[in-house]
Amino acid sequence: MNKGVLFLVSGPSGAGKGTVLKNFLPKHPDMFYSISATTRAPRPGEENGVQYYFMTAAEFEKLRMEGGFLESATFCGNSYGTPRAAVMEKLEKGIDVLLEIEVQGALQVMENYPEGIFIFIAPPSMDELRTRLVGRQTEEASVIETRLARAEEEMALAEKYTYIVVNDIAERAAEDLEAILVAEKLRTARRK
Amino acid sequence: MNKGVLFLVSGPSGAGKGTVLKNFLPKHPDMFYSISATTRAPRPGEENGVQYYFMTAAEFEKLRMEGGFLESATFCGNSYGTPRAAVMEKLEKGIDVLLEIEVQGALQVMENYPEGIFIFIAPPSMDELRTRLVGRQTEEASVIETRLARAEEEMALAEKYTYIVVNDIAERAAEDLEAILVAEKLRTARRK
Repeated sequence: MNKGVLFLVSGPSGAGKGTVLKNFLPKHPDMFYSISATTRAPRPGEENGVQYYFMTAAEFEKLRMEGGFLESATFCGNSYGTPRAAVMEKLEKGIDVLLEIEVQGALQVMENYPEGIFIFIAPPSMDELRTRLVGRQTEEASVIETRLARAEEEMALAEKYTYIVVNDIAERAAEDLEAILVAEKLRTARRK
Repeated sequence: MNKGVLFLVSGPSGAGKGTVLKNFLPKHPDMFYSISATTRAPRPGEENGVQYYFMTAAEFEKLRMEGGFLESATFCGNSYGTPRAAVMEKLEKGIDVLLEIEVQGALQVMENYPEGIFIFIAPPSMDELRTRLVGRQTEEASVIETRLARAEEEMALAEKYTYIVVNDIAERAAEDLEAILVAEKLRTARRK
């Protein structure tokens, strides 16, 4: 049996990873969409094992020290990470895995699982990214400027990925993702 | 500007390369479908530069000695080859090139242009290949046996290709080819 393929989707905040995946995931109930672990408290309506695996800081740190995360990071005092065991188990069973991770985490996964397929979702332009972030109207101007500056740095890391998908229209970008999935499964190296 | 990508489609006789391409090519008028040169005489209705570039044996041999072919071979006393210059010129201009070549020729292209994308069109099974070759009713039994024996040897070379597409249904196999084309153009290494 062939091993599953790990697909990682990443890109700057505002590039539209979520919208692209909303178009892509319903067509792939066969894929394992990995959930992150976090130490932040559940928000109303969030359930353990659905949005996140909720852990105490001690549990998280113990798992992290044991090498139990494919990647992990701390934002605003809360830790987030991708549990390694669940992902590896699916891959061994021949199930393809999809991870959606921000850029710094993606770089860690490249180190820890270089056989993965790394897909960078890019905005059509920095101007368009600004328009999108402003359009959300959820953040104040200084936050948007910070995000744009970070996005610019992250764009420079796109070359480390296997593929770059420009998200001009989410449906079309989802088709690109689809083509990548189909083609990668046809690679001779995966057919045994 | 990005260089064009050379896509090479190959596989055993009877695997259905032609039918797959008949479904694929009309959607890609932008690609350069390379024509072979040959020393065999034109058949009625064949025109120079349409089905083949027709050459004398002396012209062909001169070009071959100059390294003017990406691959060449002799069948039944006639020589066939893929002229290098036309292909390279298109690639330099950023135009993608499609070659359809039998397996021995494909191996030569892998040597001469390893940056190419090599796609092996495989029959669903050897039984199905036999059925297809018999169904054509154009060849006698001994010819079919020879082709099957050769196909078996060629199947063992599939692992040298970048991708393997199983041609169960030509329309579906053409979609696989389409996905490969889309995905390859999204590769980070090709986006400058």
